[in-house]
Amino acid sequence: MLAPHSKYSTRPGSVDDFPRLIRDAYRTSYFGRPGASFLDLPADFLRGPGPVGEDLKEVHPLPESPKPAGDDNQIAKAAAVLRNARAPLVVIGKGAAYARAENEVRELINATGVPFLPSPMGKGVVPDSHPSNVSSARSAAMKGTDVVLMLGARLNWIMSFGEHPKWNPEARIIQVDISAEEIGKNAGTAELGITGDIKIVVPQLLRHLNGWRWNVAGSAFSKQLRAAKDKNEATATALAQKSVVPLSYERAFEIIKRTLHSLSPAEEGGICYVSEGSNTMDISRSIFPLEHPRLKLDAGSYGTMGIGMGYAIAAHEAYNGPKAKASSGPTKRKKIVCLEGDSGFGFSGMEVETMARHKMDILIFIINNGGIYSGDSNSEAEWKERQQRTATGELGSDSLRGSTLGWEVKYEKLAEAVGGKGYFVRTSDELAKAAKEGFQADVPVIVNVIIESIWKGPIVSAAKLIGLNVH
Amino acid sequence: MLAPHSKYSTRPGSVDDFPRLIRDAYRTSYFGRPGASFLDLPADFLRGPGPVGEDLKEVHPLPESPKPAGDDNQIAKAAAVLRNARAPLVVIGKGAAYARAENEVRELINATGVPFLPSPMGKGVVPDSHPSNVSSARSAAMKGTDVVLMLGARLNWIMSFGEHPKWNPEARIIQVDISAEEIGKNAGTAELGITGDIKIVVPQLLRHLNGWRWNVAGSAFSKQLRAAKDKNEATATALAQKSVVPLSYERAFEIIKRTLHSLSPAEEGGICYVSEGSNTMDISRSIFPLEHPRLKLDAGSYGTMGIGMGYAIAAHEAYNGPKAKASSGPTKRKKIVCLEGDSGFGFSGMEVETMARHKMDILIFIINNGGIYSGDSNSEAEWKERQQRTATGELGSDSLRGSTLGWEVKYEKLAEAVGGKGYFVRTSDELAKAAKEGFQADVPVIVNVIIESIWKGPIVSAAKLIGLNVH
Amino acid sequence: MLAPHSKYSTRPGSVDDFPRLIRDAYRTSYFGRPGASFLDLPADFLRGPGPVGEDLKEVHPLPESPKPAGDDNQIAKAAAVLRNARAPLVVIGKGAAYARAENEVRELINATGVPFLPSPMGKGVVPDSHPSNVSSARSAAMKGTDVVLMLGARLNWIMSFGEHPKWNPEARIIQVDISAEEIGKNAGTAELGITGDIKIVVPQLLRHLNGWRWNVAGSAFSKQLRAAKDKNEATATALAQKSVVPLSYERAFEIIKRTLHSLSPAEEGGICYVSEGSNTMDISRSIFPLEHPRLKLDAGSYGTMGIGMGYAIAAHEAYNGPKAKASSGPTKRKKIVCLEGDSGFGFSGMEVETMARHKMDILIFIINNGGIYSGDSNSEAEWKERQQRTATGELGSDSLRGSTLGWEVKYEKLAEAVGGKGYFVRTSDELAKAAKEGFQADVPVIVNVIIESIWKGPIVSAAKLIGLNVH
Amino acid sequence: MLAPHSKYSTRPGSVDDFPRLIRDAYRTSYFGRPGASFLDLPADFLRGPGPVGEDLKEVHPLPESPKPAGDDNQIAKAAAVLRNARAPLVVIGKGAAYARAENEVRELINATGVPFLPSPMGKGVVPDSHPSNVSSARSAAMKGTDVVLMLGARLNWIMSFGEHPKWNPEARIIQVDISAEEIGKNAGTAELGITGDIKIVVPQLLRHLNGWRWNVAGSAFSKQLRAAKDKNEATATALAQKSVVPLSYERAFEIIKRTLHSLSPAEEGGICYVSEGSNTMDISRSIFPLEHPRLKLDAGSYGTMGIGMGYAIAAHEAYNGPKAKASSGPTKRKKIVCLEGDSGFGFSGMEVETMARHKMDILIFIINNGGIYSGDSNSEAEWKERQQRTATGELGSDSLRGSTLGWEVKYEKLAEAVGGKGYFVRTSDELAKAAKEGFQADVPVIVNVIIESIWKGPIVSAAKLIGLNVH
Repeated sequence: MLAPHSKYSTRPGSVDDFPRLIRDAYRTSYFGRPGASFLDLPADFLRGPGPVGEDLKEVHPLPESPKPAGDDNQIAKAAAVLRNARAPLVVIGKGAAYARAENEVRELINATGVPFLPSPMGKGVVPDSHPSNVSSARSAAMKGTDVVLMLGARLNWIMSFGEHPKWNPEARIIQVDISAEEIGKNAGTAELGITGDIKIVVPQLLRHLNGWRWNVAGSAFSKQLRAAKDKNEATATALAQKSVVPLSYERAFEIIKRTLHSLSPAEEGGICYVSEGSNTMDISRSIFPLEHPRLKLDAGSYGTMGIGMGYAIAAHEAYNGPKAKASSGPTKRKKIVCLEGDSGFGFSGMEVETMARHKMDILIFIINNGGIYSGDSNSEAEWKERQQRTATGELGSDSLRGSTLGWEVKYEKLAEAVGGKGYFVRTSDELAKAAKEGFQADVPVIVNVIIESIWKGPIVSAAKLIGLNVH
Repeated sequence: MLAPHSKYSTRPGSVDDFPRLIRDAYRTSYFGRPGASFLDLPADFLRGPGPVGEDLKEVHPLPESPKPAGDDNQIAKAAAVLRNARAPLVVIGKGAAYARAENEVRELINATGVPFLPSPMGKGVVPDSHPSNVSSARSAAMKGTDVVLMLGARLNWIMSFGEHPKWNPEARIIQVDISAEEIGKNAGTAELGITGDIKIVVPQLLRHLNGWRWNVAGSAFSKQLRAAKDKNEATATALAQKSVVPLSYERAFEIIKRTLHSLSPAEEGGICYVSEGSNTMDISRSIFPLEHPRLKLDAGSYGTMGIGMGYAIAAHEAYNGPKAKASSGPTKRKKIVCLEGDSGFGFSGMEVETMARHKMDILIFIINNGGIYSGDSNSEAEWKERQQRTATGELGSDSLRGSTLGWEVKYEKLAEAVGGKGYFVRTSDELAKAAKEGFQADVPVIVNVIIESIWKGPIVSAAKLIGLNVH
Repeated sequence: MLAPHSKYSTRPGSVDDFPRLIRDAYRTSYFGRPGASFLDLPADFLRGPGPVGEDLKEVHPLPESPKPAGDDNQIAKAAAVLRNARAPLVVIGKGAAYARAENEVRELINATGVPFLPSPMGKGVVPDSHPSNVSSARSAAMKGTDVVLMLGARLNWIMSFGEHPKWNPEARIIQVDISAEEIGKNAGTAELGITGDIKIVVPQLLRHLNGWRWNVAGSAFSKQLRAAKDKNEATATALAQKSVVPLSYERAFEIIKRTLHSLSPAEEGGICYVSEGSNTMDISRSIFPLEHPRLKLDAGSYGTMGIGMGYAIAAHEAYNGPKAKASSGPTKRKKIVCLEGDSGFGFSGMEVETMARHKMDILIFIINNGGIYSGDSNSEAEWKERQQRTATGELGSDSLRGSTLGWEVKYEKLAEAVGGKGYFVRTSDELAKAAKEGFQADVPVIVNVIIESIWKGPIVSAAKLIGLNVH
Repeated sequence: MLAPHSKYSTRPGSVDDFPRLIRDAYRTSYFGRPGASFLDLPADFLRGPGPVGEDLKEVHPLPESPKPAGDDNQIAKAAAVLRNARAPLVVIGKGAAYARAENEVRELINATGVPFLPSPMGKGVVPDSHPSNVSSARSAAMKGTDVVLMLGARLNWIMSFGEHPKWNPEARIIQVDISAEEIGKNAGTAELGITGDIKIVVPQLLRHLNGWRWNVAGSAFSKQLRAAKDKNEATATALAQKSVVPLSYERAFEIIKRTLHSLSPAEEGGICYVSEGSNTMDISRSIFPLEHPRLKLDAGSYGTMGIGMGYAIAAHEAYNGPKAKASSGPTKRKKIVCLEGDSGFGFSGMEVETMARHKMDILIFIINNGGIYSGDSNSEAEWKERQQRTATGELGSDSLRGSTLGWEVKYEKLAEAVGGKGYFVRTSDELAKAAKEGFQADVPVIVNVIIESIWKGPIVSAAKLIGLNVH
């Protein structure tokens, strides 16, 4: 069942096969484009007798992944195109983060002055605070650019598939990817594709650019980006400052960000974020800046829900587990912080038990709007009014029936159930206090943040369509 | 992905297809051997425009499943074999319950005097209190019988695959099943197979038996069964009366049974049980008698975990939902009671939110032993000692590390989180009180019952086998 | 790979598993709705050592399939509906043939006088020569009927899915099938579904009909059918008599039929037909009458090509092989006659080698039109002219380029290659002679019958669509 | 069904999708490790109306595959290891041929003097006649080497999985492959893996070797290889000269090789070979030298039968079709020559019709031993005697029953059937004459070469194992 969804999927025929297959699972996972391996270890083998200890055949330690470089001829062509760009743009994807190419990409951005746009999981490869970051002028960047350098990014739904009218249809695309098959997958001619590991390709490109620097100051593109940035950032600031109850997404994220940063400044990279849930993930993306790579895990290209708690546990193990300590010397610990939609959390919420059992001090914010509303109210205005009257206690929570989830569910109790801490918050002050204490706790913490609901209008009732009169 | 695991699996191409495909999904699910249908209704169709209401093509109401009868010639042969049996046995499976054949099967048992053995989900087709029930003489019955009449039961792992030495290898098997392909699937010659709906076949068989009655009183088989029954029931009673802390499985179930029956006598059939988790499911099976059919849902032939909460919600809807009321007139409500292992509950525990949102007064017992222990203690005795010292507070719960789940996790808080009620109990008295209040509540209730742990010895550490020195 | 396309699909883990799995493969194939089982016997087991002979565990002989009867209550309802029919129709499907219900169905047709329509593989259950056969008034029957009794037939594409306007939308459908899931699958309410084996159900129905006979003579439906039959049969006769070169489908089949029947009269049932290829299969269907069941194998519900030679070999083994002789006493041999389209034959034509090696005297007619023409001629008229000029040698066969297969390919040489006989025929006389000799031969025979081609107009050239300028 | 077996598998939703999906199918097939794409073009789209011609959206021409280079740091390490080798060996795989790296690999071999071993489809990248080719000292090379440079080759069954005792277990492996996931797949540490296109990597390696040349003359390894070569070649020569009837494999291939080379010398590269059938493929491999790359197509890593005719048609189109002419200027035509086992040929033999229809002058040798014998003769000696007596006509071909195919089947008639030429040959002279005429023909030709059979001993009779007494 998992074979079509993983790079490697098998089951050992005996305990003797374990070392070889475990090595092979890791090898396939790490080598080439990274991906999941699945190894089904049967319980009877795990509990049964077997050649444990010395009888076990040793396997060779797995070396670093053998990384491809780029073809110098193609890179020379790409460099020539880039040097002639009127409005160049670098798109930094998660491939750049996986390749651990932050030093190389930062040098590229600094040396050339070209503006850049990070993908959600490419954030922090170059610090979000970098002046060349045009995330808040995203639409203007996509429409205005004439040469795009894609570094391990996909033209997927987050990137509007690279299509007109979001993108300039005349733009030429230089696509760098570790997987040749990704090149030209969506819009684009694949004409300037470079297959290679970004950590190797970017220095090759810099050599071919030979000191070239884009005329940032004199460019019309630069001015358009500046203007768009100013406008969009002003709007965001206004939204973040509007203090209402229930809280808005923007206000809640602002408080969380401000509090966490006061305890662990962004530039120190002491926090790894995990996020899931469609609105929570989308809106938080632009609010939480990242100054270092690989500190953001979210649902990825397919928007799969249910991945949050598993990601958080994995991130905790990767950053703070015994292997992290053993291999990297005295690393600074990282706090794992989850920003969870309430629907998304529901898929894997029981895993807080795992966190507690393994003493993982993960901090989970549940951005709780009771799910999406598709009930019987006739308009968004009426729906908002009902919410406010429910918040004040004037109406019972029944008047909100029709949301996909209950109103003000006390998710924080799940943390209490396993020996962690829970907070239920409705206001900015409550949230700030909970965020601070949660960050400082050494147990799993759930901060349950009640926010405004979203009205999506009626769902077609499947029941109405059935018309069955089943006996 | 679901096609190999369901009878029907499809996705509509447009909203217009909904009625036809919904009907077809139900039709395929109900007709023949019942099974799951999967229909993937895309969100954009559910929210998008469509021929709602009058524009929708009506579909015909689905008639009753067209049921097959048995072949009278085969039934005549089977009747002849049965009449000559020295030690006949009827095995009643879930197929008899699905066929709603309780009246017919009861008549068969009463008319012939043949002893019967119900499968887990076949319980209650004939009341467990019936004197011919030989559940507590199961081994003696299987070993001693010479003619077995299988009514919708499978010779699967629960039935020891029908194999020697658990079963008499000379026994002849009369197998009645709605699916011809099931006949002879495991042990047996399929020589006396009857394909047909049990509700129709059993009356046919009674006609062919023509008033025959087994010589119960004079039979050696009967005496063997009686002796085995007496012995096994005495053992069970002793176990159930032994009051220790932590509670044993048997004691906990005894208290729950006694309390629930005092509020809703077994003969009234006012409770539908749901069960999952290997020990919880196995041990509770023999303790909770059922006097009516279709009041027990458990993990079935493949022992799948994670099905408990979904089953409970479905059972609540089936027994107490609007369709139940509409179709059956003023039915007495049924209380849904779940007996959950803590591991099993973890798979789908978040669904208590769904129960609360839909105002389902489901009563959930979590039989909480902290999962299975596979840690570092060298013997079961040492492990038991640690547990007791932890229960008294002498040791911290850390000394129990190695169980697959945390010690004394407060699962009841999950009920509180959604507006239900939670109980944490360690003693017989606490359990009796919680069971009573939980039964009477009109919200979801979790009773978290701390019981003794189970020592399973060390697990082979996959980590030890790896020997990887991954960079 | 084969699991989704078979009832049973597995591979033994050792030679010891062979007897059990072979038995299980047959059991699953025969029991219930018949279907293919797939057992992958690895070569190293077949050649390796193993518990051959006495060491092998015996398996029980497989009994007859345990057959379901129909529910008498449903049958009573169906009988009532049938008795009130104004224009009843029986559709006889391959299920009736698989059930070996010919005696029962013939009695039904004779006793009630109701007209019947056989499906392609249901032909011969009642002799095609029976006066109640309305095959040649098919459209009138479908449009005029008000009550349809389906006996093991599917409302698939051959039956126009049971849909308006081909069928009377008010018609009530009584569907008898061994598989409950088939009931109501296509058009129809499934309201009068009867799950059961046709051999058992039809006598049940006759008892409930209690001597009823439809008023054949006085009925308008009867007159409509008569008129349609007369008209269609006159058209068919005209087509069959028109002697042209190249031969038409109709003429070729007429010659073949007449010759074979002169050697083996239809009523003796000495020939089993196999057919594949879309036009060959469709057109021959109405021309070759069958007087006995299970003497026609064609591509079935999905129209799969490539099945012809395998079917023929299987039919030869089933009718003339050692098991046939052993189990049925001195049966008359049956000649296997294949009517193959040239395209269809190409998929499995090499299997004539298998026929020769096993001394199978199979007679294969290849109805050879050079495949379907989709070339550059602008009209059908021009295309026909080219054919005639090619036939006379005025043009080279190159002028026919564009057909999916070559012109006048000498398929008969394939028979010669393996020690069989081949005939190449263009005229009625040549065909009659070859058919006669071929029928009398005791080796595989291929009669290669050149017929007129069919013009289907231009195919969209995929090449034109590509527009690729691949390096 | 094909998705797990191809790189790309889809079906267009409309004719409009054709150009984009066809481009995508080619792109995925060519980019990265080459592999098959499957596009299912429905007949109703191909025949139906559609935006043909100008209305069709143009798609961009597909550029060259974006090729990865190797990581210079890894290559430096590999070069250091190679320079210190005592007994180096280069294994040249089909990856080197796919990468069109013949000039680069030849320079490597010539510059360094290192011996090389080609894989079946890697033959000709360096001419087989090159003195460094140690194919005929294969075992000695594998056992003696201490550093292996794998260029696009797999350690699969043909390479004995790189395992002891066939290989020196201490040998270090430098593996160059375009797919990172292939590196370290079978035996080996993957320690010296280089991911990259061989055409780019080999020149990188040569730069790092910096003029290094292995001490060929003074090396013990070199002497061992020489001795093994002399011995093995003498044996082969003896086998090839032994003229018996029926012919041996070796003798038949010797005659074919000698005749074809007299018409088209190996160094001209005018022949592309296709081969299938286990013995035919294995034995011919070492007999037919190739002086140029991409002139050998055989069953590949999985030994799939049935690929021969499809390969031959594809090779003819690739080398002699309109695209070949258009893209490469005035290329010399290549003769396609198939060496087919009779069993292998049977899977797709009907495709000679396609060859004839498209005027492809493909030359097919069928190495016809009547399939593998598993019949009732008690010894190989008795079996050989029977063959000889059958060849002389003393016994009928029935005495050979038990072979998987018929004796002396006249496959050549298949060529005659479609307008090609056929030859049936038993002796060296007949074969030489047929090979010469076949090579010079401008139609498809089948030369049916009768050779000695192979005795494999009795097969376990599945029938004996069944023991079924099916009704």
